[in-house]
Amino acid sequence: MSRAPLVFAAGIFYPGGEHITGWRAPGSEPHAYLDLDYYTRFAQTAEAGRFATLFLADELYVWDRFRSGIDHGVNVRLEPFTLLSALSQVTSRIGLAATVSTTYNEPYHVARKLASLDHISGGRAAWNLVTSASDEEARNFGRDAHLEHGLRYRRGAEFVDVVNGLWDGWEDDAFLFDKQSGYYADRAKLHVLDHRGDHFAVRGPLNIPRPVQGHPPLFQAGASEAGRDLAGRTADAVFTLGGGSLDTAQGIYDDYKRRAVAAGRGADDLKVLPWFSPIIGDTQADAEERFHELAALTPDRVQIDLLSHYLGTDLGERDLDEPFTFEFDLDGFNQSKSGYQSIAALLAQRPYSIRELAWEVLRRRFTLGTPDTLAAHLVERYEKRAADGFILMAPTLPDTLVRFVDDIVPRLTDAGVYPREYAGDTLRENLGLARPAGRYAA
Amino acid sequence: MSRAPLVFAAGIFYPGGEHITGWRAPGSEPHAYLDLDYYTRFAQTAEAGRFATLFLADELYVWDRFRSGIDHGVNVRLEPFTLLSALSQVTSRIGLAATVSTTYNEPYHVARKLASLDHISGGRAAWNLVTSASDEEARNFGRDAHLEHGLRYRRGAEFVDVVNGLWDGWEDDAFLFDKQSGYYADRAKLHVLDHRGDHFAVRGPLNIPRPVQGHPPLFQAGASEAGRDLAGRTADAVFTLGGGSLDTAQGIYDDYKRRAVAAGRGADDLKVLPWFSPIIGDTQADAEERFHELAALTPDRVQIDLLSHYLGTDLGERDLDEPFTFEFDLDGFNQSKSGYQSIAALLAQRPYSIRELAWEVLRRRFTLGTPDTLAAHLVERYEKRAADGFILMAPTLPDTLVRFVDDIVPRLTDAGVYPREYAGDTLRENLGLARPAGRYAA
Repeated sequence: MSRAPLVFAAGIFYPGGEHITGWRAPGSEPHAYLDLDYYTRFAQTAEAGRFATLFLADELYVWDRFRSGIDHGVNVRLEPFTLLSALSQVTSRIGLAATVSTTYNEPYHVARKLASLDHISGGRAAWNLVTSASDEEARNFGRDAHLEHGLRYRRGAEFVDVVNGLWDGWEDDAFLFDKQSGYYADRAKLHVLDHRGDHFAVRGPLNIPRPVQGHPPLFQAGASEAGRDLAGRTADAVFTLGGGSLDTAQGIYDDYKRRAVAAGRGADDLKVLPWFSPIIGDTQADAEERFHELAALTPDRVQIDLLSHYLGTDLGERDLDEPFTFEFDLDGFNQSKSGYQSIAALLAQRPYSIRELAWEVLRRRFTLGTPDTLAAHLVERYEKRAADGFILMAPTLPDTLVRFVDDIVPRLTDAGVYPREYAGDTLRENLGLARPAGRYAA
Repeated sequence: MSRAPLVFAAGIFYPGGEHITGWRAPGSEPHAYLDLDYYTRFAQTAEAGRFATLFLADELYVWDRFRSGIDHGVNVRLEPFTLLSALSQVTSRIGLAATVSTTYNEPYHVARKLASLDHISGGRAAWNLVTSASDEEARNFGRDAHLEHGLRYRRGAEFVDVVNGLWDGWEDDAFLFDKQSGYYADRAKLHVLDHRGDHFAVRGPLNIPRPVQGHPPLFQAGASEAGRDLAGRTADAVFTLGGGSLDTAQGIYDDYKRRAVAAGRGADDLKVLPWFSPIIGDTQADAEERFHELAALTPDRVQIDLLSHYLGTDLGERDLDEPFTFEFDLDGFNQSKSGYQSIAALLAQRPYSIRELAWEVLRRRFTLGTPDTLAAHLVERYEKRAADGFILMAPTLPDTLVRFVDDIVPRLTDAGVYPREYAGDTLRENLGLARPAGRYAA
């Protein structure tokens, strides 16, 4: 079988784009961030570009650890399931992927919501498993501190087992609807899960039939050892850190594929989708200028506080222009380990002041280029097996997505790596993934 | 101020109508119960009839306590928030009320989903608080048995406090969106809840702005002492058991109004909406015949098992035709106490066999009549202050709702008790309820 075509996910975390102060950009529409119309345009633009799916990143708190977060950041957003369900009515082909914290949710609710969204949308639902990463979230859910990293992942793994088990409880053909005999369902095709594990006790059955897609696709982004292991065993796609060299990206790609194969799956059963946050210029110099304009919208205080957040330490009292030294303790760090590690890697290369480091961390989030160079970058990463597709996190919205669809997508179809039409009706079909049979199917 | 007009909520629990085997009726469409189009027609029909709101009843389990539930009942349904959010895009005026269990949910998630639905729908969200009522639900959420009744209500009361507090955290005018200065929000208008109670510890703030309606309306249906007390203090509307004499209904109505006043609120701040499940005939005899046809669709086994469920005891081994005796223990009973009590009241009147009692319980759910007599009944109950409106639970769908809107609604407008147009854009406006100011508003 030939390789599935390149796929894209259109991501949003900050409504104004993947830059905490992107809402200040000239083309941004901050008054519209609670209007469904704003997201409708986003979704319809992505659908016009044959994106496989929307993807709503999410957190369960307001970033108020530092005052600058409230002053300058966009800390509010619509809830993913309600937003995606509304968007299901103004789109027809694009997938609808919601972020779900397995630390602060119950698998019965999550299995049900995803099945419901999948039925409502005709097979376009998906979920992005996160284990959450901050004490602030814990404090919104009755805990004082965040669960330890390994525990979070063990809970996450069990969560996936329970959700898949609940989805399989009713076989695909369990329902009879036989008005004459009065039999609504065939009892022999209903299976009670009766799960009792370390983290969850869930009897079932689920009160909704098996999803259209069998199991709505599962996305993950965990880059730690525990995260990669879970993805290799259970994910349909992983979002990876983008940027970096081709070698590095190929190494990450191969690692995930190996883990999938080691778990008894096919290498193609797990899609690797690096993060791609392009700043698109008419020339390279124009892209550089656009980046500087965007960066200038971010007050210094915000950059320092973001760096403080990534490192789990308040740097506000330090001198910003002296060489910065920091004792990294990866094992003891309980937020995103991959972000922490990438900062450690930077500091291992050469000295930075805090101000320089904050700038460099920001700079590395973006890929700068022209439509030609950016399209060539994407084609190369796909063809050289560093990526099966990308998650587009547009630095500013709505302009970057519009330009991406207008100027980069056609170059990808011309290069023969990107589809001119959607392949199918369901997200699984458009990702090139088979529909899983139920565990009880004959 | 004159009294607000009569209002209706269009309820659904079983997708085929408020009869467990209504899906067998000639006009029913059981293959469509997962299709959004089916609910779109329902919502648009209710909106054409100027219903104030849709109302999705809900439970968090499959009723498999008895085999007949799986064989003959409709145990599957779409999840309320995803369904209502999708329906927000195919309707423009009708409210969107979701049932929420305060026993098996977290207030942070619930406050957020309701705020999101309220923003997406332009101020049409509402919630119906239930404390859940069966061990089966407990077993889907890590517990072996259901929480005790009083504890459930204390938790529910605290849940409401937390949700309201989270909604008020951002003042209505907290957001600046000032691109020039870079200030997104005014920190002085953000208030951290920091709730620490017996059942919940929730710091906040909520990661979504204050809802369009301030607080989306809160519906309740608790009829026990604890339930009525909570409603008097916190509900915007209560759903009560319908049927019964005018005297009885007036007594229930007055009781809720008194409790609202005792809690320092206005009597009009709490709407009393009895359940109304009409079987509409061209003549009274025709309605009787329709009821018998509907009842005949329900296998005896289902009727007995439902009675067993209401009483919390398996009656399957008892003789169905002998006089039935039962030791009622209201205090010790931990499901719906009002249903249990109404059965005790029946048996206190005269002897019944199990078969007769099951039939009588079914019969009492419905009000039989012609469009003229049913409309007159509604007008009388409204004018004599036994009701501020009704929750319509159509015994069969879609036919009963269509006939209600076609044949009963015009009689109510002609009688001058029902509006010819929606009063406003938000559900609060259409219920005649004021928008609550935030607790921190100047």
